[in-house]
Amino acid sequence: MHLSELATPALVVDAARFDANVAAMAAARPGPALRPHVKAFKSTALARRLDAAGHHTFCAATIRELEGMAAAGLGSDLLLANEVLDCRRLGALVGAGARVTVAVDSVATVEAAALGGVAEVLIDVNIGMPRCGCEAGDAGRLAELARSQGLDVRGVMGYEGHLVGNPDRSARADGLTAAQDLLRQAHEQVGGDVVSGGGTGTYDQNTAATEIQAGSYALMDTAYAAYGLPFTQALSVLGSVISEGTSRGRRYAVADVGLKSLSLDHGNPDVSESGDPPVGSEEPWGKVWFCSDEHLTFAPILPGGARVGARVRVWPAHVDPTVALHEAMWVVDGDEVVDRWAVDLRNW
Amino acid sequence: MHLSELATPALVVDAARFDANVAAMAAARPGPALRPHVKAFKSTALARRLDAAGHHTFCAATIRELEGMAAAGLGSDLLLANEVLDCRRLGALVGAGARVTVAVDSVATVEAAALGGVAEVLIDVNIGMPRCGCEAGDAGRLAELARSQGLDVRGVMGYEGHLVGNPDRSARADGLTAAQDLLRQAHEQVGGDVVSGGGTGTYDQNTAATEIQAGSYALMDTAYAAYGLPFTQALSVLGSVISEGTSRGRRYAVADVGLKSLSLDHGNPDVSESGDPPVGSEEPWGKVWFCSDEHLTFAPILPGGARVGARVRVWPAHVDPTVALHEAMWVVDGDEVVDRWAVDLRNW
Repeated sequence: MHLSELATPALVVDAARFDANVAAMAAARPGPALRPHVKAFKSTALARRLDAAGHHTFCAATIRELEGMAAAGLGSDLLLANEVLDCRRLGALVGAGARVTVAVDSVATVEAAALGGVAEVLIDVNIGMPRCGCEAGDAGRLAELARSQGLDVRGVMGYEGHLVGNPDRSARADGLTAAQDLLRQAHEQVGGDVVSGGGTGTYDQNTAATEIQAGSYALMDTAYAAYGLPFTQALSVLGSVISEGTSRGRRYAVADVGLKSLSLDHGNPDVSESGDPPVGSEEPWGKVWFCSDEHLTFAPILPGGARVGARVRVWPAHVDPTVALHEAMWVVDGDEVVDRWAVDLRNW
Repeated sequence: MHLSELATPALVVDAARFDANVAAMAAARPGPALRPHVKAFKSTALARRLDAAGHHTFCAATIRELEGMAAAGLGSDLLLANEVLDCRRLGALVGAGARVTVAVDSVATVEAAALGGVAEVLIDVNIGMPRCGCEAGDAGRLAELARSQGLDVRGVMGYEGHLVGNPDRSARADGLTAAQDLLRQAHEQVGGDVVSGGGTGTYDQNTAATEIQAGSYALMDTAYAAYGLPFTQALSVLGSVISEGTSRGRRYAVADVGLKSLSLDHGNPDVSESGDPPVGSEEPWGKVWFCSDEHLTFAPILPGGARVGARVRVWPAHVDPTVALHEAMWVVDGDEVVDRWAVDLRNW
């Protein structure tokens, strides 16, 4: 099928860019040195590609994501890198033969793991971001509690979410020193083989972690594209120009790509005419005015661009929640649609 | 089922508040004076309630929404209040017995309607917002073109989207004067019985429109709640506190309601402990620090609140894209879950 036959809006993955991203990460973090984060793509079809690239351990943010991975036969080592208070659905996965580890950071979450039938846990440590994770000094006590309840404590995890949002590599490195010290300190108390952490922004800088939890690197977004990483933007939303007009003397065009097909939490998207995203300081082809439910109003910076009926590519600033808005990704090789990956891990 | 048995995050509709909103609108805009906008709730189950309240005409923003409405037997007068370049799916609905009208604002969209087998159109007029819609002075020419292609031109539509975002009623009224003048001017050229426009923010102020396109009034959000309208917030996301901690001496809690279950495009949500939203100038129970993919970090303003395991209600600032993130809404009467409405009109 030709790209022009797709109804818009449609989520499109550039196969060559995706393959290059996967290969670059597999070279830097081979096999279990990477635990791909399913939350970034919510698709077992995509996960299979990472499995084929040598990564057989995965982490996720929701129970539904783990259930889908286990059902797809990708359940040999699954980590719920998040806290939950009812682990019965996870226990059912264990009962059905999947290996499931869950993050715990409190007495309540330790008890939930034991009650729900999950056998293995990681102690989640707050290494600088006020979200989940216990104080580093409290990790040993929680590990002891977990072991007393019959749980196998595999190690620790900690996410430097307060650092991965900084495009300046040396600033990330500075912050990592303190964050990794906290994680190492917790690990000394807890024991176990696993030190899990990091993300796409720190995949080669986090030396404390035995495994990196990265997912965005595979599809990439305009936010991470500013970091100078060896990954390029493979995901865009294909849109159609459905209207055009003039406002206060300025021409604008309207594409059928709104905030229901594109997450704005990291800011406005870029717009390009072709399947190549704007690179580095290159100006996007279209300047975004605003985005509403089903519309993107933008002004092409080149004269004569964007007539009604033209196709455009819209490059999301944040890939994870953008993927979650769609039921499928279309994989393209140039203008040829070569595959359809269901986004089958949505909802909770 | 008791509310506490729902897995979180879960979209919850307060039945009494919803019923009161529907009744208030049906009294102000009975029957065809309101054309409920399906994009706000994406659910045929909810649409049936509006049908039962006397509204049998509906509008929508996507083809998928219209297909679902027609399949549910609610296709007696459907308007696609949006431009599309391929009307074949709409033509198929007409062929199957639905009444479908589509908005057109250009030669290309008129031709698409005729080619696709849609028999009826509205001329969409730009009345001040740079999005879809032709210039008012161009409406007559487009109507003539449409009629020359065998289309029935039912009238005009124009959306005052540049005004509905203003919580100040008199400011909306000031802006409406010019917007309505444009719509009336276009209608004089175009003819037909229908003048379609407005939204929840102008449902009782827009006197040019024969029918108001409003949808948010049924569920309401914190943005519209600031307007002093006779509708109250009926939609919240039920969450669980999954973690808590201290950052720089300040206590915080983390709920499992992130930006994948809550749209942030109109800003951060409010947090409350109970099923009642903060009203007017009342402080929300929790102050939001930040929202990430699956987490909301907030600080309860009351001492001693929000222990791990507690349930909270998160009130979205924008209801339309929030609903689109979920596969179902749970309808509650107090703490009792009385119904489940599938969000069956997602995707395109």
